[in-house]
Amino acid sequence: MHMFDVAAIKQQFPIFDHHPDLVYLDNAATTQKPRAVLDAERFYYEHHNANVHRGAHRLAVAATDAFEGARATVARFINAATSDEIIFTRGTTEAINLIANTFGESLLAGDEIIVSTLEHHANIVPWQMLAQRTGVIVRQLNITPDGEIDMEHLHELLQSSRARLLAISHASNAIGSIQDIQSICDLSHQKQCKVLVDGAQAIAHLPVDVQALGCDFYVFSGHKAYGPTGIGVAYIEQSLLRDLPPWQGGGEMIDVVSFAGTTYAAAPQRLEAGTPAIAQAVGLGAALDWLATLDRSALLQHETQLHHQLKQGLESIEGIKIHGHAKNTVSLSSMTFAGAHPYDVAQFLDNKGIAVRVGHHCAQPLILTMGIQGTLRASLAIYNTQHDVALLLSTLAETLDLL
Amino acid sequence: MHMFDVAAIKQQFPIFDHHPDLVYLDNAATTQKPRAVLDAERFYYEHHNANVHRGAHRLAVAATDAFEGARATVARFINAATSDEIIFTRGTTEAINLIANTFGESLLAGDEIIVSTLEHHANIVPWQMLAQRTGVIVRQLNITPDGEIDMEHLHELLQSSRARLLAISHASNAIGSIQDIQSICDLSHQKQCKVLVDGAQAIAHLPVDVQALGCDFYVFSGHKAYGPTGIGVAYIEQSLLRDLPPWQGGGEMIDVVSFAGTTYAAAPQRLEAGTPAIAQAVGLGAALDWLATLDRSALLQHETQLHHQLKQGLESIEGIKIHGHAKNTVSLSSMTFAGAHPYDVAQFLDNKGIAVRVGHHCAQPLILTMGIQGTLRASLAIYNTQHDVALLLSTLAETLDLL
Repeated sequence: MHMFDVAAIKQQFPIFDHHPDLVYLDNAATTQKPRAVLDAERFYYEHHNANVHRGAHRLAVAATDAFEGARATVARFINAATSDEIIFTRGTTEAINLIANTFGESLLAGDEIIVSTLEHHANIVPWQMLAQRTGVIVRQLNITPDGEIDMEHLHELLQSSRARLLAISHASNAIGSIQDIQSICDLSHQKQCKVLVDGAQAIAHLPVDVQALGCDFYVFSGHKAYGPTGIGVAYIEQSLLRDLPPWQGGGEMIDVVSFAGTTYAAAPQRLEAGTPAIAQAVGLGAALDWLATLDRSALLQHETQLHHQLKQGLESIEGIKIHGHAKNTVSLSSMTFAGAHPYDVAQFLDNKGIAVRVGHHCAQPLILTMGIQGTLRASLAIYNTQHDVALLLSTLAETLDLL
Repeated sequence: MHMFDVAAIKQQFPIFDHHPDLVYLDNAATTQKPRAVLDAERFYYEHHNANVHRGAHRLAVAATDAFEGARATVARFINAATSDEIIFTRGTTEAINLIANTFGESLLAGDEIIVSTLEHHANIVPWQMLAQRTGVIVRQLNITPDGEIDMEHLHELLQSSRARLLAISHASNAIGSIQDIQSICDLSHQKQCKVLVDGAQAIAHLPVDVQALGCDFYVFSGHKAYGPTGIGVAYIEQSLLRDLPPWQGGGEMIDVVSFAGTTYAAAPQRLEAGTPAIAQAVGLGAALDWLATLDRSALLQHETQLHHQLKQGLESIEGIKIHGHAKNTVSLSSMTFAGAHPYDVAQFLDNKGIAVRVGHHCAQPLILTMGIQGTLRASLAIYNTQHDVALLLSTLAETLDLL
């Protein structure tokens, strides 16, 4: 018996005060926010609000301390070697674009970037755009029918002496597959290929230790980890970070500006042009601090048990096809229906207050590989209950009877 | 007698509940936030929080309505012809980088971008970086000793058949000079030169009508207009917007993604990759809606009267030199001191609870042109009072006596 008290957790999320019957199973799109995060942002605005880094007054010092404190919290949460390795971005997407426009620009025409078929568009399109600009080549890494990385194909792709970067998700947003990032990094590094890990779907659920994983880049969004919208993180290992050129230009990221020529500041400032998302960084810090107070293994066990209940239930309902059968997954299930469109099913669920997502989940190549148009995805988080899963299952069964 | 009740306004800003003696004169760096904005963000998170645009459930619809409603509010506030002309960014800096990386990339080597000496680094460095990438040429537009645009020099620079873009601030963040944007746009357009206006320092103070101004691009930050951090706007006139290529790649901005090739969505989505700063857009919408409820001309008169009090007071104190004497300015004053460093003076002010900014204000070329190292800047906003200005003046006089 684990000691995870989901009722006590759920009470910390005000959205359920206002929507007591809401069954929110769209957590892979965005999570709800605990009071601790909303309070931290508001406290920042009401007590410390000022611009950071340039201040000659106490509010500016307090704002800078709050902002840099959040950076230290993020570093601690993912066990980065130093806070300087944490670059604040708007989210996962901007983090990957930042890396494509800095590290990526250092690659040469003909260099290869390996991108798995599982990836979210955010981890595909920036590499395609880079390829169009610079002549680097995007190599598609196959997956198995179960939705796991095809490790033989990875071995094969890494035989190329031009393989420079592997872009891979820690967990798939569409079918949940968890990759063995540590082994993948070991393998890639033997071939001098760097590894970028898209942690958007992992950060709220799995322990993440960037040094133990051995990755070169790790990116995630605040809003998928109980934090605010408008904030995310690019972890960049310090030996790489040192040499990265700037991307966006503006205040904060410069040393000396003149019309004759401009010089740049050290990282992380070099990569954070302009006023950052200060209050949102503070909110993300609060979210991660809040998560860190919980028994993370009990939390994972809670989500895993609910997912087990969900999978078992889905298998027992006639006419449901589950997509993705990786051995290790985060707690989400993606499905289609015999004789019913996922969108129609989702409308019935919505009428019962059950929120799920329908579509290609920004993973069109994966969906295409699976030979379908889209799925209905139910994704779990910390505040979901056995009741939530049971209601989803019974409503699915009723709906499929009707349709 | 105007009807602007500053005490009633100030009561709407919770930071003054927690710091009742705070004299906040660092508004050009960032403004404080009214309760209406903090409440709107919190209401969004507690009632509507979901990801936007892709939803099959009622929260996702509510979130999308709130987000797109904010876009419509911004369009209305600056009188854009359509909401599609409003691109949400992190702030002014990202907005200018977006334009440099889209419109800017359409320019040819040898094409010229005219950048005024008054500009903030955010409106200089992105053009320098573009010049390094593409061979466009940055032309420095001179200012007069009073800190106004040298209109003769602008005429001269516009004689070049290669002049493609003028990058100019509506109001200078360092010395306050307001430019006659309408005339400047007329003049530039006669020479087929587009105009980008950095409105960061104008949006909270001056009426902004992008159609009346006639500019092609107008950019600003939420956090300098009583809105949240982490959100800003690029207005892009629709005939230009139509042909702009994407900048960042990811979800939302695509049409079809495949490893064989990807196609892109229409604007504004094409230019907004990834989950946007949803709650912050909602907060910005609330800030502009709140501003729009006020008598804007009474507000401007209030700020102008306070600035008059400030300027008169500063002139009467021995040893203060005011920098910038443009005919029209927003309500800020930049100064240096005979025999005292601005930073030391600011420390004395801070001890009395008076917040000002010291340094180059991210405008090193301007500061260099004025032959100084930096200034102490006092910048006013809606909640400042005659008492605030009087306390600044008396404390400055005392401090200069001591130093």
